[in-house]
Amino acid sequence: MAFFVVAVMVVIGVAVCGKPASKPVDQKPDPVFGITIPAGYRDWKLISVAHEAGNLNDLRAVLGNDLAIRAYRDRKAPFPDGAIIARLAWAYVPSEENNKVFGRAQSFVTGSPTNIQFMVKDAKRYAATGGWGFAQFEDGEPAAAAVGRSCYACHQPVEDRDFVFTKYAP
Amino acid sequence: MAFFVVAVMVVIGVAVCGKPASKPVDQKPDPVFGITIPAGYRDWKLISVAHEAGNLNDLRAVLGNDLAIRAYRDRKAPFPDGAIIARLAWAYVPSEENNKVFGRAQSFVTGSPTNIQFMVKDAKRYAATGGWGFAQFEDGEPAAAAVGRSCYACHQPVEDRDFVFTKYAP
Repeated sequence: MAFFVVAVMVVIGVAVCGKPASKPVDQKPDPVFGITIPAGYRDWKLISVAHEAGNLNDLRAVLGNDLAIRAYRDRKAPFPDGAIIARLAWAYVPSEENNKVFGRAQSFVTGSPTNIQFMVKDAKRYAATGGWGFAQFEDGEPAAAAVGRSCYACHQPVEDRDFVFTKYAP
Repeated sequence: MAFFVVAVMVVIGVAVCGKPASKPVDQKPDPVFGITIPAGYRDWKLISVAHEAGNLNDLRAVLGNDLAIRAYRDRKAPFPDGAIIARLAWAYVPSEENNKVFGRAQSFVTGSPTNIQFMVKDAKRYAATGGWGFAQFEDGEPAAAAVGRSCYACHQPVEDRDFVFTKYAP
């Protein structure tokens, strides 16, 4: 879940935009790792979901491409080259419609997309950062270099899980 | 999100079990609509995610089979026969690991699975309930008949969206 340090999130703010986060593939790559938005990521399989409160205040889904999902299910670490993990996030919004049905204020749903993040495994290319490249996009645009540069340090506490925080939700 | 009335959820409680919710296919069908757990539902594409607070206290993901996803994307209502929408849910659990990285208590992740629910479209077979059959399973076992019987009434407020609460998260 905590793909990127909150300090960076505060600096860059959380872009809540009206447009879909899933954009065509011909994108500017991120300035640190050269990652572009992977084609078809919105259709990838679900790893897990989460809620970040505080400044992020989002609901998020973590998806994986087939290589990533297979590694999760086989409980194999490290992840193989080519594995990609995507973190989608949306504003955390109360649902008046749902609350009416439940008869109480308890329901929170997804609002506008905030940003999307990717971890791309390439043991050689990204050897200096645990074999992972990191990228964040807001409304299709890559985040500033400072964002990507901050990722690896925060992922080090979970080195024994190949630097991946999110666990597979059965 | 509000696939089933909260009153029923309170009556039946929220079964928080340690075992995965995704079970083999040879299941007992639910007692009202005759629905079994669809094969491969855990690999379906993501529609959206949500958090229900209160007694449910869960994080949830709503997935759709290909027919359901296509109908969402084409913004076609009603959904075609064969469309199935799955609601997975897990206990809403604070993540100490993530909080340490973020430097504050803000992170909530999935714990044990609670139950899974399905809406299955068959306009003829389920004509009496808006063309949808409803089912809930806890640890692979279908819920009592009272659960399935309660669903349709609560879904009526969103008849104009073919009785489906969850909107597609871009």
